[in-house]
Amino acid sequence: MDDYRQDTLEKLSQRLLAFARERDWEQFHAPKNLALSLMIEAAELGEHFQWQDSPASETLSEVQRHEVSLEMADVFIYLLRLAQRLDIDLLAATLEKIEHNESRYPADKVRGDSRKYNQY
Amino acid sequence: MDDYRQDTLEKLSQRLLAFARERDWEQFHAPKNLALSLMIEAAELGEHFQWQDSPASETLSEVQRHEVSLEMADVFIYLLRLAQRLDIDLLAATLEKIEHNESRYPADKVRGDSRKYNQY
Amino acid sequence: MDDYRQDTLEKLSQRLLAFARERDWEQFHAPKNLALSLMIEAAELGEHFQWQDSPASETLSEVQRHEVSLEMADVFIYLLRLAQRLDIDLLAATLEKIEHNESRYPADKVRGDSRKYNQY
Amino acid sequence: MDDYRQDTLEKLSQRLLAFARERDWEQFHAPKNLALSLMIEAAELGEHFQWQDSPASETLSEVQRHEVSLEMADVFIYLLRLAQRLDIDLLAATLEKIEHNESRYPADKVRGDSRKYNQY
Repeated sequence: MDDYRQDTLEKLSQRLLAFARERDWEQFHAPKNLALSLMIEAAELGEHFQWQDSPASETLSEVQRHEVSLEMADVFIYLLRLAQRLDIDLLAATLEKIEHNESRYPADKVRGDSRKYNQY
Repeated sequence: MDDYRQDTLEKLSQRLLAFARERDWEQFHAPKNLALSLMIEAAELGEHFQWQDSPASETLSEVQRHEVSLEMADVFIYLLRLAQRLDIDLLAATLEKIEHNESRYPADKVRGDSRKYNQY
Repeated sequence: MDDYRQDTLEKLSQRLLAFARERDWEQFHAPKNLALSLMIEAAELGEHFQWQDSPASETLSEVQRHEVSLEMADVFIYLLRLAQRLDIDLLAATLEKIEHNESRYPADKVRGDSRKYNQY
Repeated sequence: MDDYRQDTLEKLSQRLLAFARERDWEQFHAPKNLALSLMIEAAELGEHFQWQDSPASETLSEVQRHEVSLEMADVFIYLLRLAQRLDIDLLAATLEKIEHNESRYPADKVRGDSRKYNQY
């Protein structure tokens, strides 16, 4: 089953690589440019939440939710492209980071504590 | 098999939700805050490429590649959390966006053309 | 008096240029790298507001306000460096943009209207 | 003469405050929202350098240089607004940071050394 888990990201990544190769765009996709692009797309995502208070950001209209989902897709696309270009296993790295967070923030010590949460 | 494809992201997302709930951190994870957090993590990723020329960014040391992979994990974690909070199907949105890009950028018209690439 | 107005930014800019030259760092300060650095410093500024609701962000402790002021200084430093490298008159550009905004958003039409404010 | 130096930023800041008040937009300009807005504008600036190598970013066309100058103005506007809302003296903070950098990076130790430059 682990093979299947990796499968999705690998398939998406291959499709994005084929997309770039068909357009001869691999020459533009240096890791630095992809990281910068990811930052730019993250900011376009943030733009949807620019002037709201945080609680209001829970209730998006269907139109907004769709727009937000496509901005998130852009972030994901650059993340997958960057992983592919740097030969990084995004899933393995994410599991490593989650495990690190689980041991770094023991539930009993940090529960509901925004100050502690703020300090990393 | 499509069930399995969705499976990975869904499992990761559930694990991240449990992590937040156990720490009573869901109160901090308003979509606006998660989008801002994603932007911040994207910038920490970008920091690894701050002073290099783009071609040099291809060749990271093993230590740098590992650090970069963990920054990418942070971006991915906030992306999954945001999708979960907004009830967005990240995989479906990504496929929609890829299909949109494939029709918006016909290979024959944009091949190797950085000017066209620059204009969106 | 206009000479004096320009004076401050020009003096800061000259001091930053001298700082970079003395360290032979001009080679790293290509406009692309400075723009990326500005984005990174902007994110470090944003980190101070990551988990608060917007209203709470009004009331920083003295320590936080000092830290925030130094992050803002970093943004300003890269902004001045970029202006110097691209031979851009930041003050003139800012006045042009303010005038543009004043005509683009007539007070009578947009007063208190967050929807309109949201749409640019 | 120091009065005149401060004068420019203060005058710009007052004009931006009047602009916001006339439109009843002060309610949206919580520090968190202004910091997020600054990050978004910084990313729009970065978009102009997305696919170039760093050396190529030196030579912008006149049209690009003008567009870049207006994006920089947007960053500066939010920086001044944020300083005003938090009652921060941006000029004093910048001088403090420059002095800190001058002592933190002695020219003799860091000259031309991108590794050292990379490590902060």
